[in-house]
Amino acid sequence: MPLITLTTDFGTRSPYVAAMKGVISNIASDATILDLSHEIPPQDVMQAAYFVRDAIPWFPEESIHVIVVDPGVGTSRLPLLINCNGLKLLCPDNGVWTLLESTEPSEVYVLKNPAYWLEPVSNTFHGRDIFAPCAAALANGITAADLGQKVDTWQRLHLPTCIPTRDGILGEVVSIDHFGNLITNIPRDAVLDRETRISIKDKTLSRLHRTYGDAPAGELIALISSSQFLELAVVHGHATSYLQAILGTPVHVQFLS
Amino acid sequence: MPLITLTTDFGTRSPYVAAMKGVISNIASDATILDLSHEIPPQDVMQAAYFVRDAIPWFPEESIHVIVVDPGVGTSRLPLLINCNGLKLLCPDNGVWTLLESTEPSEVYVLKNPAYWLEPVSNTFHGRDIFAPCAAALANGITAADLGQKVDTWQRLHLPTCIPTRDGILGEVVSIDHFGNLITNIPRDAVLDRETRISIKDKTLSRLHRTYGDAPAGELIALISSSQFLELAVVHGHATSYLQAILGTPVHVQFLS
Amino acid sequence: MPLITLTTDFGTRSPYVAAMKGVISNIASDATILDLSHEIPPQDVMQAAYFVRDAIPWFPEESIHVIVVDPGVGTSRLPLLINCNGLKLLCPDNGVWTLLESTEPSEVYVLKNPAYWLEPVSNTFHGRDIFAPCAAALANGITAADLGQKVDTWQRLHLPTCIPTRDGILGEVVSIDHFGNLITNIPRDAVLDRETRISIKDKTLSRLHRTYGDAPAGELIALISSSQFLELAVVHGHATSYLQAILGTPVHVQFLS
Repeated sequence: MPLITLTTDFGTRSPYVAAMKGVISNIASDATILDLSHEIPPQDVMQAAYFVRDAIPWFPEESIHVIVVDPGVGTSRLPLLINCNGLKLLCPDNGVWTLLESTEPSEVYVLKNPAYWLEPVSNTFHGRDIFAPCAAALANGITAADLGQKVDTWQRLHLPTCIPTRDGILGEVVSIDHFGNLITNIPRDAVLDRETRISIKDKTLSRLHRTYGDAPAGELIALISSSQFLELAVVHGHATSYLQAILGTPVHVQFLS
Repeated sequence: MPLITLTTDFGTRSPYVAAMKGVISNIASDATILDLSHEIPPQDVMQAAYFVRDAIPWFPEESIHVIVVDPGVGTSRLPLLINCNGLKLLCPDNGVWTLLESTEPSEVYVLKNPAYWLEPVSNTFHGRDIFAPCAAALANGITAADLGQKVDTWQRLHLPTCIPTRDGILGEVVSIDHFGNLITNIPRDAVLDRETRISIKDKTLSRLHRTYGDAPAGELIALISSSQFLELAVVHGHATSYLQAILGTPVHVQFLS
Repeated sequence: MPLITLTTDFGTRSPYVAAMKGVISNIASDATILDLSHEIPPQDVMQAAYFVRDAIPWFPEESIHVIVVDPGVGTSRLPLLINCNGLKLLCPDNGVWTLLESTEPSEVYVLKNPAYWLEPVSNTFHGRDIFAPCAAALANGITAADLGQKVDTWQRLHLPTCIPTRDGILGEVVSIDHFGNLITNIPRDAVLDRETRISIKDKTLSRLHRTYGDAPAGELIALISSSQFLELAVVHGHATSYLQAILGTPVHVQFLS
């Protein structure tokens, strides 16, 4: 039973996700459809890319992932199918999949065979008219070569780079989770097993904690996120509100040893 | 494997949707349950009707759709089962399904056989006690005639009518999507391939765009929605906030040719 | 096809729920995954317990329920598997399951066999690294005794007690639903078929209504909730805003007969 997951910025108040599920059910009646998120911030391809990086690798090989955060829908940007580490991803050519670490070269196809699209294709909703029917076709055993044509170039996104400083490393907040925890681009290995001083806004932390419950409620702590990056949290609280931090807020790590 | 979809205004913070899923799983263990939306604005039957119109027709024949937006729960309003274009819909008699275009006469049944209800039936939660078990029974092959009795009259909703003006047509905003785009009741054919001037609030637009990305970010544009109506959007922005528009805001189309 | 449900406070904007679904799909590819809620108020174990009490009993025997509202993740609190009324629940030892009425003694196991965990186990995300893989193993037929070890003590939660007064009973608002309806801890049998006066804030109600639609829009009414407790609602409105009530707001029932 093939597995098709859906990740969008469509919300569920609008009928867009429902229409995609209808199209898939209609074409691939034995596919299992799983919602990953429809609450990606509207049109925020970078946040979608972090989501994809942290969620998709946990799925089994041969699973099919439709990822539609698509401010360029209907323009010249191309619809893609990507084979990456045995996973299949369908998404606009906006780089949303390119933060995934690939152990082997990815194969990228442009979805250009209209035989597998819903006609007439709307200019504003390729999720329903191109990505959903192509995902369902894949689930039915149609090959990538049937759906499109291999290409060698595509858009890429990059994690903001950490900058080495005189005595440490300067990173930033790159995502904020549902609890208000602040996830940075500073990798685990830069801070673990090392004496450090961590600064954000006007606060300074002198140690890493293991987990949220290791400090009293209300305390600002630094720890390693489940995605293996430096994270700032307030125990049983909301670090984003507490610090008035936003995406891009600088985080400085000083190495003391 | 029969498909049962759920559309409600229950949200997911409350246990109501979960209870419905439990009831269905208990009775029809091999049915596939798909969430369409639980974020219909509370008690807003008209918004639910637009949702149903735009989402349900994409589903395969024989799929079963439970639609519970039910401010009249427990009163004399009747619970219905509708066969419409090969789809089966279960909903209170509030007209929520009547914006669907039907290619053949629909068959409407009142669900009146308590043998298929959960007893005792709560006065405030027919989603769990009548609609969910009847949908599950249908999935198990129980017929409409077993579940109830055919009727000839039911509530109907109507799309607000567009009004012809001296030099064009006057419509209104009838739904607002997750991106703040404003969908009107002015059909595609009234504006496409025609020189027009489109007015909303104090703004006037002199052309239709193909898609969102065809104009610079921040620009207010008019285009054809994926449901084939005139839509107003702000490129990479939020037209509802930008225009301070609401449901019912008038939209005037002047025909220039 | 085993059924695994997910209830969390993770939201869906973050990749946490998606990662859990990936892990389960990877281990138990033929399990059906159902979302119950990811909108439990963050870290609010008591609200999760009400949700569990009202939702989980509707599910069939042998269904598997993962409930992760886990402010103590990574601390000494233990991960549990519970057999309760034929249902299997996996959750941290925070009492979230203990409001379920049990018709026979529950069996409680500590999940302590790391052979079924994802290694390395994150300190902050046991949902992904312990609960999801153990639920998937259960779905695959692994036994409770394989996954852990039976224990005799665990955390318990209690519904706030109603207090008898000179002429009635004093309860409180214990949960608030998506419509703003106020659910109390006063059981149905204390108020049904009895002449009462019900007071909340500065309002007094002299009767129970059967359902929302039995009074004019805007009227504050008392009725029996679908979970069989006294509930306060505003017809087609939002009782919480109307009354400025919160969790814990007292509700007094005077017995007049």
